[in-house]
Order: sequence, then C-alpha cells, then structure tokens
Amino acid sequence: MRTVSSIQELRASLHKVRPQTIGFVPTMGYLHEGHLSLVDKAKETADVVVMSIFVNPLQFGPNEDLANYPRDIERDSRLAESRGVDILFFPSVEEMYPPGSKTNVSVQDITESMCGASRPGHFDGVTTVVAKLFNIIQPDYAFFGMKDAQQVAVVMQMVRDLNMPIEVVPCPIVREADGLALSSRNVYLSPEERRQALVLSRALRQVQSMVGLGERNVEKLRTAIEKVIQESPLASIDYIEIRSYPGLMPLEELHGDCIVALAVRFGNTRLIDNIMLVASQEEAACSVQ
Amino acid sequence: MRTVSSIQELRASLHKVRPQTIGFVPTMGYLHEGHLSLVDKAKETADVVVMSIFVNPLQFGPNEDLANYPRDIERDSRLAESRGVDILFFPSVEEMYPPGSKTNVSVQDITESMCGASRPGHFDGVTTVVAKLFNIIQPDYAFFGMKDAQQVAVVMQMVRDLNMPIEVVPCPIVREADGLALSSRNVYLSPEERRQALVLSRALRQVQSMVGLGERNVEKLRTAIEKVIQESPLASIDYIEIRSYPGLMPLEELHGDCIVALAVRFGNTRLIDNIMLVASQEEAACSVQ
Repeated sequence: MRTVSSIQELRASLHKVRPQTIGFVPTMGYLHEGHLSLVDKAKETADVVVMSIFVNPLQFGPNEDLANYPRDIERDSRLAESRGVDILFFPSVEEMYPPGSKTNVSVQDITESMCGASRPGHFDGVTTVVAKLFNIIQPDYAFFGMKDAQQVAVVMQMVRDLNMPIEVVPCPIVREADGLALSSRNVYLSPEERRQALVLSRALRQVQSMVGLGERNVEKLRTAIEKVIQESPLASIDYIEIRSYPGLMPLEELHGDCIVALAVRFGNTRLIDNIMLVASQEEAACSVQ
Repeated sequence: MRTVSSIQELRASLHKVRPQTIGFVPTMGYLHEGHLSLVDKAKETADVVVMSIFVNPLQFGPNEDLANYPRDIERDSRLAESRGVDILFFPSVEEMYPPGSKTNVSVQDITESMCGASRPGHFDGVTTVVAKLFNIIQPDYAFFGMKDAQQVAVVMQMVRDLNMPIEVVPCPIVREADGLALSSRNVYLSPEERRQALVLSRALRQVQSMVGLGERNVEKLRTAIEKVIQESPLASIDYIEIRSYPGLMPLEELHGDCIVALAVRFGNTRLIDNIMLVASQEEAACSVQ
C-alpha cells in the first residue's frame, strides 16, 4: 500500500492504473468495521481500491467537534493496509482547500430536513468535498455507509444531477453485537452514555415490530420511538423523522420505500441511526441486529 | 462527424477514443467565426474535438432572451463539420435537466460584479451546466472565448476549486473588420444599432491609447469610455468596469493584469466587449482591431 498526500501525485498514480476500475471509499478516518466493510465491498467490485481520510472542515459547524474529532492515522493506515486498500489518500486541509477557494456545490430540498436542519451548511460541505474527491480520484464506484442515509441520498442526487460518471454504492450499517451502530464518535461516550445509547437501536427495532404487526400511521410510530428514547435519562432528542427515501418527503402513512431516522444527543455527543422500510417487503423491513 | 443527443450514447462514443486527448468547445450555437476559432485551437491541441450546442435555460433570467435566442442547427452542423469537429453534442433541455434536478454549482465573489450584477443567477447557471458538460464529456482541454472574460475567470475558478482534471484555454476575441466583437446576439441589431454598436470597440481603443500614453487612473479612463459611448444616442450603458483579472477586484490605479469590460444595451440587445491590459506590457495592451 502507498500513502500519498498530494493531489498531483495521486493523479499520477491513478493514471497508471486505468483502464482498471477504481473503487473509492471516502472517510474521515478513525476507522471502524463500518468503514472496513466498505473496503470489502469495494474490493469485490473494483480492480483498485482508493480510500481517503480527510476530516473535512467545511462540513462542521462553528460549534461542532472539528477540533476534537478523533484521529489516529497510524492505526488507520495499518487497518486499511491489512484490509487491502491499494492507495490511501490522506491530504492536508491546505492541499484540499488552497487559499482563495470560492466554489460551492449544493443540493437543494433533500438537504433541508433532518441532519440538514440540525447542522446548517453541513451538506454543502459534504457535496463540495465529495465533488472534489470524485474529480481527484475519478472512481468508477464510490462506497458509502447507510448510517449516514441522508448523505447517501444527497450524494446520489448530486451524482445524477451533475452527470458524474460514478456509481454510488450504498452499504449496510454495521452494528456492535448489542445493536449500537458503529461510529467514530462512539469513542466520546462515557460508559453510562454508551449503555444508554442502546435506546437508538431499541427504538428502531420497536418500529420494525410495530410495522411487522401492520402499523402504518407515522405519528403513532413516531410517538412509540419517542417513548423508548425518553426511557434513557441522558438522551436528548435532536430529531425523529419518518420519511420517504431517497426523496425525504414527510409522510402521514407509510407507503413506498421509507426511512426511520434518529439523531439523539448524549452530553456533547450526537449519535444518528436509521432503518429502511422497503415497500416490497414492508412486513420484513430491514433487520436491526 | 456524428451528432448525438443522448448522454449515454455520447459517453459510449468517448470511451472508445481514450487514451486520445479530448478538446471541448461548449457553445450555445448560432455559430460565428469566434466559435470556429475555438475549434481551430482545439484541433491544434487535442486529438478529438467535441463541440456542444445547448442554449442553457439556467443561465437566462426571466426577462432575458431565452425564447428568442437565435438557433439554426442545420447551419451550425455544416459549419462545425466543415471546420473539423469530430463529435457534436446537441442535447435537449430534458436530456440535460431531467425532472427533479436539485444540484447547483456556484462560485462566490467574482460572480457578484459586472455581468453577475446585471444578470442575477446567470453565473450559477453557467457553472452548473459547464460542470455537467465537463462530467459528461470528460475533456482534457476546454476552449472559451475571451469575449465572455468574466465567464472564463469563473470557469477557471470552478475548475481549480473542484479539482477538475481539465485545462481551460482562453482564446482571443474575434472581431468584424470594423471592430465589432462577434456575437450570436449581433443578429438582433437593426442597421442603425449595428452602426452605433461600434462605440464599444472605439471606447476600448480609446482606453488603450490613453494607457499607452501613460494614464493609470481608473476613474479618468472610465470617464473617457463613458464619453465615447454617450456619443451614440441609441446606447444605454449597463456597466463600465476596470478591474484586476482574473480576480475582478476594483482598482483606483491600474496595476497587474487588468480588464476593461463593457456592457451596453441597444434597444433590447445587450452587447459586451472587453480588452485586457497585461502588466508585463501595459504600454502595448492587447490589440483591438
């Protein structure tokens, strides 16, 4: 495995590998099994796997955790190499955003609700950096985890709208044995917060069984989620949303493909989780371990 | 030459030609010698030349000339073929903007003055369509006429900021023998307007000789331009700007590379023209025929 930090050097490396296909796994590092499952999928799909590690300042708000976001490039590098990443792209902030940058890529409408409402400007930061990374790497496939389901919807919309010659491959959420969705931010949780954070996956399983029993009323499902989360005294609800997916339209009754998405704070740590309710097999829904 | 209207078909055609280099000439059609000089330059530079003809609705304001913009695809097609275009991309509005498009590419700061001030939203329309065309065609080189000098600055900024692997090649303004800059919109002019429209290039020549004689004061140069244009009773000044280029910063004294840019209306027709004043040879400036 090679690690390169310069866009020019990366491009030179990539030029040699064409016409092999390139699979791209963009990350902010502090890798966990969720990220590494994307590498596995990329290796199945493409000839060459490129991972980026870049904590993108543009997608953090002024009061968010940019400075404290966990970083460990030595460990990440070992994990990426052992899982078979061919090229790790690890640019500096200056390499990605030279002075005088003035261009913004933004997706309207589906960025306004959910995490977009809680984190103003977040998705503009995401689409701008992803557009840059796509232009730098020119992948054939790009792999994103469904934990950030709204991000997946937004990136797919951008790719379609801007005619980027890239297939976006959404990959399933990876969870701990007890149900907690993997996240680099889980490291922030105190032992007691970590224990109480299980309410997220528990609430989603609750929705799943209600839907399995035939419940279709969104307000009832929402209320049930709220009740489960309020059992955890340390939890503070940011949002509970049940919407169409990937269009993210509000619903009164479930129909078509839907997402149940949560954002909940424990102290300063904001966790997200979701399940998809797929129209063709609503009774089965997607499993939360 | 082949003409294709479908993005998919175009991509399939382009895939075959790599690793040859691709030169791209984006146009709104109604071709004149200015456009065709871009084709000449593209043929000198790249192996395969792709021209697009697309009257982009996104870059027209609600009270502008979208519906009336001159179109003649048969004539354009003959001209493009005779000049050596290899592939002409002539998409429909539906092909370029399928229902549900939500993504916008925008450049800040240098889009706010000059044509950006007169035509709100214009440059967002330009950058969005150019980003799409670049992703569709994946050219190595893209050729733009300097008559739209602000557009050249904006596209270069976008390419740099988004790391698009494309070299933007600015090409000189082509003029009629009497000095009028070629434009598809010249066809709108009545004979009397056409005659009076010569004040644009005359005013630019006036600036050029003042600068040749040592004048550096921007307000004095601006006043001289205004005086020349006001000699034409049909002319209505939209803007007269003397700014740094490509940064488009306002100036009090000329220094570094500068642009003198005009937009003037004759009836419903808005014409633009400009000259560059290059720092290294300020006394010479660029010639206006």
